[in-house]
Amino acid sequence: MALLSPSRRLRRTVFSEGVEAAGVKAYTVYNHMLLPTVFRSVQEDYHHLKSEVQVWDVSVERQIELKGPDAARLMQMLTPRDLREMYGGQCYYVPIVDETGGMLNDPVAVKISDEHWWVSIADSDLLYWIKGIANGWRLDVLVDEPDVSPLAVQGPKSDDLMADVFGDEVRNIRFFRFKRLEFNNQALIVARSGYSKQGGFEIYVEGDRNAMPLWNALFEAGRKYNVHAGCPNLIERIEGGLLSYGNDMTDDNTPHECGLSKFCDTHDALGCVGRDALLRVAKEGPTQMIRAIEISGPDVGVCDRWWPIIANDKQVGRVSSAAYSPDFKTNVALGMVKMTHWDENTKVQVVTNTGVRDATVKESFWI
Amino acid sequence: MALLSPSRRLRRTVFSEGVEAAGVKAYTVYNHMLLPTVFRSVQEDYHHLKSEVQVWDVSVERQIELKGPDAARLMQMLTPRDLREMYGGQCYYVPIVDETGGMLNDPVAVKISDEHWWVSIADSDLLYWIKGIANGWRLDVLVDEPDVSPLAVQGPKSDDLMADVFGDEVRNIRFFRFKRLEFNNQALIVARSGYSKQGGFEIYVEGDRNAMPLWNALFEAGRKYNVHAGCPNLIERIEGGLLSYGNDMTDDNTPHECGLSKFCDTHDALGCVGRDALLRVAKEGPTQMIRAIEISGPDVGVCDRWWPIIANDKQVGRVSSAAYSPDFKTNVALGMVKMTHWDENTKVQVVTNTGVRDATVKESFWI
Repeated sequence: MALLSPSRRLRRTVFSEGVEAAGVKAYTVYNHMLLPTVFRSVQEDYHHLKSEVQVWDVSVERQIELKGPDAARLMQMLTPRDLREMYGGQCYYVPIVDETGGMLNDPVAVKISDEHWWVSIADSDLLYWIKGIANGWRLDVLVDEPDVSPLAVQGPKSDDLMADVFGDEVRNIRFFRFKRLEFNNQALIVARSGYSKQGGFEIYVEGDRNAMPLWNALFEAGRKYNVHAGCPNLIERIEGGLLSYGNDMTDDNTPHECGLSKFCDTHDALGCVGRDALLRVAKEGPTQMIRAIEISGPDVGVCDRWWPIIANDKQVGRVSSAAYSPDFKTNVALGMVKMTHWDENTKVQVVTNTGVRDATVKESFWI
Repeated sequence: MALLSPSRRLRRTVFSEGVEAAGVKAYTVYNHMLLPTVFRSVQEDYHHLKSEVQVWDVSVERQIELKGPDAARLMQMLTPRDLREMYGGQCYYVPIVDETGGMLNDPVAVKISDEHWWVSIADSDLLYWIKGIANGWRLDVLVDEPDVSPLAVQGPKSDDLMADVFGDEVRNIRFFRFKRLEFNNQALIVARSGYSKQGGFEIYVEGDRNAMPLWNALFEAGRKYNVHAGCPNLIERIEGGLLSYGNDMTDDNTPHECGLSKFCDTHDALGCVGRDALLRVAKEGPTQMIRAIEISGPDVGVCDRWWPIIANDKQVGRVSSAAYSPDFKTNVALGMVKMTHWDENTKVQVVTNTGVRDATVKESFWI
């Protein structure tokens, strides 16, 4: 792995002190901010995440705040998902599209009230798009990046650890719902959500006053659960089919190509700037789609560029994420595959950094 | 330094193969892409840049293309700099501002024709803002990221090396002007510009066909000039007062605060979305401004977070970039300083990562 030069531009977070003390080994950069990628090893972190509980600094999930009379209208302009039935206290995963239906981000929208939303973003400056749309359409809404840093608690023992710190009320939070719970005289939004399939919560920490105190409280209470610092895990997220914006999808892709059709209520999402383009796609269906792909052989190594997917000497897709899965004893991968080859069990080949491998298209993810 | 985890999301460039072969030691991430930061050492690279010639992979200066009848109108909406006198073949450094006059990026605009512009961006997804504005204001213009990768040739021997590869015509290109010159049957835009004060050129390489051939041709011809792979140099750019978006300025700052008033023709920049706010600022003047700051003592180390600037126990600013300068034998730094303390030779203190240091506000940069 190469070295990363530090600079102010690659922002530290309110939890960096804790992350460093926990022995972070490597980072990626996400929304101009440091995101840990390895603590012990990707494999060790993986096994621990699936059996115990971890605390993740996901401050990089920066928030965009929409506030004002036109907030709900603006939010609906951004996404083909129908938001009319959504009420305060809910979180929605919302593909964000431009006027051609191209994906600009795939955040979680947190509805605090009709006139107050947070958008918890993936890796792109979505703030710029939202500000541009608000300005151009002359909407009555303030759009800004508030000082909010999400901290995730993930893993099968998340409920127990969170209950020790926030009280048993956390156990009653349903999936993709949130409550405001007290910590140290501050009411924080606590949502049942997170970028793993192991269950858990995301705490939206406002300001820095309670950041390290909360971090420390979780580690203190977590001793009996064998808590450890963690981070989104490459292997686990591929197994679970959790897409990564910038890796598995870009602004060239529609939500339909990304397997996100269920989040596109294009008929009803009146006002979405990409509606016309997506109505057309919904009618005709996409010609390529994200698929789970099993790559044969030993550990396939790091996918640091698109790996062509080949069949009969022609390119029929590309792999964008890959890792060796200790649990499934195979290389798990995600990639965009043309409709001619996306059926289950189609045999293809993948051009990896270390040579051509046989691979199989799968119908579903591993978990 | 920490390790950087590779992934497809941190894009490689068309020159990565050459960069790796040249022995890159560290990277930063810039516009979701890998930007080299060190080849031999920051100091060694610095001395070499100032005396010889270097080839830099600055593909991270991604282009945004504006094409269509409203391209010029859109370009003027983005910046307070008056573009009416600009003609095809010119490059302008243009602060880009939002409706409040906050800086969103500080790119170089390349005017190919009235209806065709490239914007060569600093580190933020400016594409999103421009697309949002174009959509909201219903402008007749296509906005996209074309496949263009700038390659810089920087250092005192740049003219000689470039003339050997592109012919003597390059010597006649004036500062911030460009010509289309042939390389291997492809006419490439070659501009006299670059992110150093040592002189040189930027070649806008379209597609990947000629990327590595051009890289190799420059190294082949450059042997007699002692050419080496290089990159924007932290020390040299601070000495020269070259600002870095995300380090020295953010969307909280106006161009006036960044010392960019000379690029704000606010009265005449009709149509700029931030004009009203900036007219107000121009009238009253900014209350803080970027200054050169000399920090006493030995090598001050890496500025990876804002360092408070203190006077009489009160914060009066913050340092955002710093490095020890071998040529000036002092720590050179850039920072935002309140008007109460921005006069030349004002004595202040800087809270660095390794303790409080005495410092002096300077009127001008080092070169």
